[in-house]
Parts: sequence; C-alpha cells; structure tokens
Amino acid sequence: MSENQILNINLDLIDNLKWDDKGLIPSIVQDIQSGDILMVAWLNKESLQMTLDSGNATFWSRSRQELWMKGGTSGNTMKVQSILMDCDGDTLILLSDAAGPACHTGERTCFYRTLAKRSNEDETGCPGCSGCSE
Amino acid sequence: MSENQILNINLDLIDNLKWDDKGLIPSIVQDIQSGDILMVAWLNKESLQMTLDSGNATFWSRSRQELWMKGGTSGNTMKVQSILMDCDGDTLILLSDAAGPACHTGERTCFYRTLAKRSNEDETGCPGCSGCSE
Repeated sequence: MSENQILNINLDLIDNLKWDDKGLIPSIVQDIQSGDILMVAWLNKESLQMTLDSGNATFWSRSRQELWMKGGTSGNTMKVQSILMDCDGDTLILLSDAAGPACHTGERTCFYRTLAKRSNEDETGCPGCSGCSE
Repeated sequence: MSENQILNINLDLIDNLKWDDKGLIPSIVQDIQSGDILMVAWLNKESLQMTLDSGNATFWSRSRQELWMKGGTSGNTMKVQSILMDCDGDTLILLSDAAGPACHTGERTCFYRTLAKRSNEDETGCPGCSGCSE
C-alpha cells in the first residue's frame, strides 16, 4: 500500500478479500446521499490501489481489458467515501458521491428498468394496502 | 412463465437478461425501506421463476449447487417487492422487505465491515468540515 492515499485501508481486512480466478472482485457503487445503487463494476488489485490513492472510483474493464477511472472522459467521476466488504469477502460496496449520471445511457443509475414488480402494486408504487386513502 | 405469480414480469425485458456461462446472474438484495444493501447472491432461471412465483427471494447456491429460498430454514425470508435490471442486463436488484438478519453471521447486512474510508473522516463518520461544531 502506498503513502498519501486518500482512503485509509483497514489492514486487518485486506487479506480477507477473495479475488476470483481472473484476479477480480465485483463492486457495487452506491450513492452515499440517496442510497441508490448506481452501477456494478469490477476491480483488480491495481484499480483498487488507484481508487485508494486518488479517492476516485477506478475499475478494470473486462471487455476492454484495461483500467478505467469512472468519469475520466465524461467528467462524471465517483468520489468514494468508504468501501464496505461483505461477510465472505468476495463483493465490495463503494459508497460514493456521484458527479453526474452513472450510466453510459445518460441515466442517473444503470438500474433504471423494472424487470418485475408485485401485481398488487400500482404504477405509483402504492402497494394497495386496505384503507389506503391515496 | 407460470400463472398466478406474485411478481409480474415485464416480458419486453426478459430477453435482455444476460446469463453467464454457468447460466447464472448476480443479484443485489436491497432493503426497500432503508436502502441498505443486504447481500449478494446468484439466480439461475429456475430460482428466478421461484422468486417470481412465490415473492420470496430464492437463489442458486454455487457452493452447494442447489436452490435455496432465503430464510427457508432461519425464517429470515426476503419478500421481494420489485426487481430492477441494469443497462447491460447482467445484474439485478431485488428490492425487498427483510424479515430479519440477512447475514449468516446474524448481522443485519452482509456488508457490516469497513475496508477503507477517507482519512479526513473520523470514527463518527463526520467528514471534519471546517467550522463543524461536533
């Protein structure tokens, strides 16, 4: 781990990270203000180090096989405030401030489509509880 | 798709789902009340169908190579309210009501550990803004 990094890592936990057979770990970017899940992307060790050093979310692109700092071209950077790790150490959450849309489509979040919802839920999201006046 | 399912699927989107080479897709379980991310688990087509039919989150266990309804033994079920899909169709969010702890450790969420945080953030989460009285 390098000096002068923006994010301080908990060294007791770093050895618990489980990198997959390609040396990658998936990360969920969550908006620290709204709690919305913005996107999912992959980290390798180098991109994790760059994220810790710069404070800006930096990933490994599986399709392009290269490092990419989110917002490096669009300006829509992700300022990472903290990184959470799950119980088995194979997934991370990057709690972040987003400078703009997370999605390449221009949507604020990549999860802008609803695949399924409860049949008793109307378009407004009201679950249709009995006695509900709305 | 079977009749009488609890969750209604958007048939225009179902063909956009990208199952990986093992026939799986990762899903993020998010607490619909708090917005907290509770856990990440995998779906295959059968477990997605069971989730749609029952409304209870049901996954494919990669380690045990079997279907498991979350809370089937513990009682800590996840009542799925809606399912969101990301822009490239390879990750889902299950927006859910959790009946109890999501994590096998007894923690409410599997993401209970902080791997890294900004060095200007103290233990209370205060970012140390100038003039802050706390």
